[in-house]
Amino acid sequence: MFLRNCWYVAGWSHQFPADGLVTRTMLGDPVVLYRKADRAVVALEDRCCHRLAPLSLGRLEGDDLRCMYHGLKFAPSGKCIEIPGQSFVPGKAGVRAYPVVERDCWVWVWMGDPASADPALIPRALGHGEAGWIMRTGELAYKANYELINDNLLDLSHLSYVHAKTLGRNSMAWADSRPRTTSLARGLRVERWVVNNPLAPYLGRPADARTDSWQSYDYLAPGVFLLSSRFYPPGSAAAGDMAAPRPDLEPFWVSQTSQAITPIDEKQSIYYFSSCLDRESANEEQADAQIELFRRAFDEDNAMIEAQQRVIDRTPRPRMLATASDGALNQFRRLMARLIEEEAGADASAVANGQHPAITQASA
Amino acid sequence: MFLRNCWYVAGWSHQFPADGLVTRTMLGDPVVLYRKADRAVVALEDRCCHRLAPLSLGRLEGDDLRCMYHGLKFAPSGKCIEIPGQSFVPGKAGVRAYPVVERDCWVWVWMGDPASADPALIPRALGHGEAGWIMRTGELAYKANYELINDNLLDLSHLSYVHAKTLGRNSMAWADSRPRTTSLARGLRVERWVVNNPLAPYLGRPADARTDSWQSYDYLAPGVFLLSSRFYPPGSAAAGDMAAPRPDLEPFWVSQTSQAITPIDEKQSIYYFSSCLDRESANEEQADAQIELFRRAFDEDNAMIEAQQRVIDRTPRPRMLATASDGALNQFRRLMARLIEEEAGADASAVANGQHPAITQASA
Amino acid sequence: MFLRNCWYVAGWSHQFPADGLVTRTMLGDPVVLYRKADRAVVALEDRCCHRLAPLSLGRLEGDDLRCMYHGLKFAPSGKCIEIPGQSFVPGKAGVRAYPVVERDCWVWVWMGDPASADPALIPRALGHGEAGWIMRTGELAYKANYELINDNLLDLSHLSYVHAKTLGRNSMAWADSRPRTTSLARGLRVERWVVNNPLAPYLGRPADARTDSWQSYDYLAPGVFLLSSRFYPPGSAAAGDMAAPRPDLEPFWVSQTSQAITPIDEKQSIYYFSSCLDRESANEEQADAQIELFRRAFDEDNAMIEAQQRVIDRTPRPRMLATASDGALNQFRRLMARLIEEEAGADASAVANGQHPAITQASA
Repeated sequence: MFLRNCWYVAGWSHQFPADGLVTRTMLGDPVVLYRKADRAVVALEDRCCHRLAPLSLGRLEGDDLRCMYHGLKFAPSGKCIEIPGQSFVPGKAGVRAYPVVERDCWVWVWMGDPASADPALIPRALGHGEAGWIMRTGELAYKANYELINDNLLDLSHLSYVHAKTLGRNSMAWADSRPRTTSLARGLRVERWVVNNPLAPYLGRPADARTDSWQSYDYLAPGVFLLSSRFYPPGSAAAGDMAAPRPDLEPFWVSQTSQAITPIDEKQSIYYFSSCLDRESANEEQADAQIELFRRAFDEDNAMIEAQQRVIDRTPRPRMLATASDGALNQFRRLMARLIEEEAGADASAVANGQHPAITQASA
Repeated sequence: MFLRNCWYVAGWSHQFPADGLVTRTMLGDPVVLYRKADRAVVALEDRCCHRLAPLSLGRLEGDDLRCMYHGLKFAPSGKCIEIPGQSFVPGKAGVRAYPVVERDCWVWVWMGDPASADPALIPRALGHGEAGWIMRTGELAYKANYELINDNLLDLSHLSYVHAKTLGRNSMAWADSRPRTTSLARGLRVERWVVNNPLAPYLGRPADARTDSWQSYDYLAPGVFLLSSRFYPPGSAAAGDMAAPRPDLEPFWVSQTSQAITPIDEKQSIYYFSSCLDRESANEEQADAQIELFRRAFDEDNAMIEAQQRVIDRTPRPRMLATASDGALNQFRRLMARLIEEEAGADASAVANGQHPAITQASA
Repeated sequence: MFLRNCWYVAGWSHQFPADGLVTRTMLGDPVVLYRKADRAVVALEDRCCHRLAPLSLGRLEGDDLRCMYHGLKFAPSGKCIEIPGQSFVPGKAGVRAYPVVERDCWVWVWMGDPASADPALIPRALGHGEAGWIMRTGELAYKANYELINDNLLDLSHLSYVHAKTLGRNSMAWADSRPRTTSLARGLRVERWVVNNPLAPYLGRPADARTDSWQSYDYLAPGVFLLSSRFYPPGSAAAGDMAAPRPDLEPFWVSQTSQAITPIDEKQSIYYFSSCLDRESANEEQADAQIELFRRAFDEDNAMIEAQQRVIDRTPRPRMLATASDGALNQFRRLMARLIEEEAGADASAVANGQHPAITQASA
């Protein structure tokens, strides 16, 4: 069950060469992508309307794509413009074309009704491609449903456990912090102080140095995580009564990361992530060290979530016990269920009950 | 859905040793084959009637085959002739035996009712084992339904695309030629002139040499392709008003190839093919070069068709758009559907609709 | 379909370290096992009640196990004793705990209702860990349903075929012997003389030496094979009129083997086996030689049974033809079906018919 009227990341801009075909499976659909001469990205159904051969085994001819099984040719609009052996091309002959927007170093594809494809719905990645930020990028394939990855990112208490030796820095600071959650139009804002936490080693501070960090992220449909982390001296959180830091309170270190999950199908997903460090306070080596830390940490998530998916797959009637930490993730699951329901015009309870493990409330 | 009352190629004669068991899966049936002392090939159900162990793990004892799990012994007729631990062998004890005929270097197995197994129904391969022809052989495993391979061989316009760099010789001659199709008892005859086409390099002609070739093949149930190719100087087709070449018009080069597709199951097939060159005009090196070219070309087909199968498998309700080039393949699909229907005594439309992607007509 | 109210072997005692988690899948259930400080083995459902992550990716904290996804902690009883982020732990929060008994070098787990877990139901392995026996151990993974392995061990006529070159010693003595079968509370006793059989080479006897051996085993639910083999001079069987050897008839060689099959799921099993030789007549080298022979022989069984399973899987309506040798195995299948039926309170015929290939009687 996917939300289709939505923009999904199909990859990093640098993954789309000037000349060549890129294939993706998105929401179960086979998609072939390429750049036109004007560098605009085209996304077509990767399935010829004639004998269902993949167009990605075809040949680019200018801005058009020819199927190399029996030679049908398609325009960037998806319309078939040549059928060898016959002069007539029926108007209905063609393949689906998906709206594409390239923005913030990501190629976004609209998987639903093209008429509803509003570029204003594209979430803005933080610092991507901006001169003031030292950017690094990564991606990771998941053998897991995308909602399990959403869940992971919506409950960062897992940093103290899954990432005890990496992002968690052997501290309970993340597990002990309680975020405040605010509803957004198509998502949530989740904010918190993480108090008296060790610093990443690549900051070059003494080993016993500590920080209070203000961690604020927006989590937007279908699975876009936009986190800004601002680091202050220890005591800053209490000094401000745990309220959001005043704008004039200058952090000594700022990190931003944008992450996007795109379902391949119900059991596989792909995860794109960035690291952006403020060029005023960080250097290239620190940027390398941070993305390397992210890679190791996200491999830890991957191992846990894929294992979780395997357990769910072998469990006849999976049930989950909701805890106090599950507030944000359950809120987002309900939001997604509602959006999918609105899209389908279907009954909400069917969507909510059919797809997910039953949930029992454990919090007092 | 398979046509069972039909002869299927189980392999090349040279693949069946005087002493030893050969296993095949044909139309979903496990089959074990071996030669008797008189060299006749026996084909038995590869599944002991006792505990369902494969007889192919058994032991040849003269012309009989003993299951090496608990020792039941079977005659070439499939009849069980010994059950250890009991003197009585019930009459019904046994495994299925399949009629076998070895002909034209191929071992043919009848997969249906033995009573209907008429050797006269075996298609005759072209030049196999005949002194006048320099023969080479090959085989290729397919992860695809056999009908997709039939389709491929019944629309040779694909030579200009799939095989642009091999059989197609960077020419549109194949795509531009329109064959004439004639019905046969259990198949089709497809004939055409391919005009002004480059020659294969191993003929040793100048690089710009061209030929008009008369390409005629019979395509017979369940999937046997028998192609004779006769090469004449350019202009020959027009000089004869595009009619079949007169018998006294001597070609400068003749090639024959026989090919047979045997379903392993609904999603896998095996493909046997030969190359035969006229010994009067060709030599051994040219025979080697031609089979090598075939291998490369058939690997190209294999990549395209397996990809096509994967697309079909992931498409919920596959639909195909019929073009002008699909005449022969659709005719053959209807023929096979009719034969299967007649065999089943089943409703024709059920067979035709249930198995295949829905087809829309695109030709004017 | 499994018998759950039963003890199953989860492994050899030496496979459970003092500090560390062991994972098993038993009867389809994911299980994590570990030793407490007092060395008692704990077996818990390997699936956190919160988000279904595997506890085997967790961390031992004293005798407790913490899930390393979001930090829930579980006692050896399965009860959840800590939920990070909330002070309240609901009484129902927890995972299933399985009764465990360590006995005779095996760790036994009760897979059914804990209230019925009676240690008196544990079969006693022969000679395991006893000073008078030189013991060797092994295990083997099977891609086959456990009942096919039961079948194998309940018809030892296969020694003359499957094991012709190993345990069968190129003799028909096993195939020609007819065992007598006696019912036990939860199993069968199967006894026979195997007459005038060659001896294993590691006994160091002349190559033409023969023996009459008294082979007696108990086969107990769910799949425990306890075989005592006593070797006498040839002629001993006839001298005693084929009756069980008198207690005062001293064998020149005694071997015991205990074997246990644990279903992983419907299509996979694990097989544990021992070899025990009487320390009075055998030495360490002979013990090594015998377990090595067992390994080779059990690999032969494995190849045959996995092949049998694959044949069954591809056979639409598998039917088996019962022979005179199938008495014991059919009796045990009926016993298991009855025990499962009693456990389910279900209809007996449903159990017996639904699961197994249909059986036709072949014996006169």
